[in-house]
Amino acid sequence: MMNTRLKKLVEDFSRHKNIDAFLIVNESNIRYLTQYPAVESWLLVTKLKAFYITDSRYILEAREGLSGISVKQYSQIPYATFSELCKQCKIKRLGFDEKYTSFAVWRKLKEFCPSRSKLVGVTGLVEALREIKDEGEITQIRNCLKLHFKAIDFVKKVVKPGVTERKVALQLEHFVKSHGAEFSFSPIIASGPNSCHPHARVSDRVIRNNESVLLDFGIDINGYKSDLTRNFFLGRIPPRVAQVFDAVTLAQREAVGLIKHGIAAAAVDNQARKILRKFGLAKYFGHSLGHGVGLDIHESPRLSCKSTGILEAGMIVTVEPGVYIPNQFGIRVEDMVLVTKEGCEVLSGYYN
Amino acid sequence: MMNTRLKKLVEDFSRHKNIDAFLIVNESNIRYLTQYPAVESWLLVTKLKAFYITDSRYILEAREGLSGISVKQYSQIPYATFSELCKQCKIKRLGFDEKYTSFAVWRKLKEFCPSRSKLVGVTGLVEALREIKDEGEITQIRNCLKLHFKAIDFVKKVVKPGVTERKVALQLEHFVKSHGAEFSFSPIIASGPNSCHPHARVSDRVIRNNESVLLDFGIDINGYKSDLTRNFFLGRIPPRVAQVFDAVTLAQREAVGLIKHGIAAAAVDNQARKILRKFGLAKYFGHSLGHGVGLDIHESPRLSCKSTGILEAGMIVTVEPGVYIPNQFGIRVEDMVLVTKEGCEVLSGYYN
Repeated sequence: MMNTRLKKLVEDFSRHKNIDAFLIVNESNIRYLTQYPAVESWLLVTKLKAFYITDSRYILEAREGLSGISVKQYSQIPYATFSELCKQCKIKRLGFDEKYTSFAVWRKLKEFCPSRSKLVGVTGLVEALREIKDEGEITQIRNCLKLHFKAIDFVKKVVKPGVTERKVALQLEHFVKSHGAEFSFSPIIASGPNSCHPHARVSDRVIRNNESVLLDFGIDINGYKSDLTRNFFLGRIPPRVAQVFDAVTLAQREAVGLIKHGIAAAAVDNQARKILRKFGLAKYFGHSLGHGVGLDIHESPRLSCKSTGILEAGMIVTVEPGVYIPNQFGIRVEDMVLVTKEGCEVLSGYYN
Repeated sequence: MMNTRLKKLVEDFSRHKNIDAFLIVNESNIRYLTQYPAVESWLLVTKLKAFYITDSRYILEAREGLSGISVKQYSQIPYATFSELCKQCKIKRLGFDEKYTSFAVWRKLKEFCPSRSKLVGVTGLVEALREIKDEGEITQIRNCLKLHFKAIDFVKKVVKPGVTERKVALQLEHFVKSHGAEFSFSPIIASGPNSCHPHARVSDRVIRNNESVLLDFGIDINGYKSDLTRNFFLGRIPPRVAQVFDAVTLAQREAVGLIKHGIAAAAVDNQARKILRKFGLAKYFGHSLGHGVGLDIHESPRLSCKSTGILEAGMIVTVEPGVYIPNQFGIRVEDMVLVTKEGCEVLSGYYN
């Protein structure tokens, strides 16, 4: 008996993709569909049944953890098992995920695919389902944020002049892990000039007085994630830093103000850029405005000037304009926003 | 001026692959060739010059950190930059890495490739270079092992009846990180019946007396890695566990005894399996015997009954037979071995 996510997938691919089965190789996509923390596995979904294919290292856990899905063990390479299932289920047109299937795997699939079957490239099918979060998923992300707020409170006490970025990262990590959670990505703790790198690596730099510290991290609980960026100011805030902070904050608030069911993702990005342009800062904003967050830290939809998508109720996105003045400093303000029918809810509540 | 690794790559691809440039998209491969901790980047290597292609988030660090390599920034998508470079360098036959290039990226490359250029699938070119470690790399791995031994000493004091696996993992992680290192993979701390899963996840299970605890973790310092597995016995060792431990240890020692420059990787795997067969345990040894370790935790060469390769001096491999009795317990013994002209050196010195 397939779960509702698998049923929805089958409905979508039957209706729109003209395939009779879909081979999924991406861990987050498999996790979403099975609600099981998949590792080193493939998921073959036919119209009637789903098969989880893994090797001896993971087979016992998979059999214990999965229900309503047939678990198949392969030895050495999965292709023979795959080929057998294709024959057994009489698959004629097999979809494969173009984004996550390597060229080498595709070649092997072609080799092992029964001669009458055809491989059909498919993109974004599961990712599209994952864009809209259900109540359970929203609750999971809210739980990540609850711990995230506590972690920000904790880190506020740790960040002070004389401490290294690495020391802050270590203490923060210990805090997060001792609360049973994981980081959702390597944290960014970028002090002074280091903050001009949007994705700075944690360094041994000693944090000084009268500078800003950019703190970007995320919490992962059972696969679901949070992602927020805050800027701490130690001592006196240099006027230029304060101006940039105000401009970035305004750009973020104005962009968030636009978000609701039905608006183009690109319009939200443009709004933030427009505000920064007024301050002559748009040229220092090199990345896009935001991204979906869920089982992956960066997932669909993107808020970018090149996005063609429309926001829908149930999507959760970050809104994170940033201004990075080379060799001087950088400011990024990032919150997580749930799109609703009427507007949106800032899940992180502009929590400072 | 290209470094020696890049020069060797150019020599190899010019001689054996009939291509005049190679596009590398895998982070570890790029890191190996550039000796720079690459993220979110591509490396295009022509016969005369190498180009590191990244976006605004990483561009400043890349310019600071790379020498002898041209750093190119792209905005939004890398394909236009890639296309320009192909034209500028008059690339006719461009190799792409089949294993790491997704089908979707390959399609885009085809689209953006100048019309007179041809894409040529290539596999394992950089991985083959990485198989043989140079002195600097061997030193880096020895440094990982030094800390690894200390971490084992530390964890010995932590593992005791009444403590949960998760608590052990947390304390071990704090130890590793406070020594400036990272885990090279999520550690396995599998107590009692949990150890029958070769890749068990750390759980909240309370460790009890009179059971074995399988501990498999690795240290990562500046990208290079270690990987060892030890089994701790608390209280009285059940006779069956002791028998299996002795058999697995013997299988490992006999396999290590075969290792030297010129021996087939499959022969080493077969040797371990032969010993376990004598004890009637081969059927519980589902995975392959070992793998290369370096910038990746699992890299070429593999020690497997299906391997076709020959071991060469300078390779570093794990030797890790394991026996997993379903629902009862598992034992795995894993050391790291450097292949030499005359035989091998157990880098981890059977350190217990």
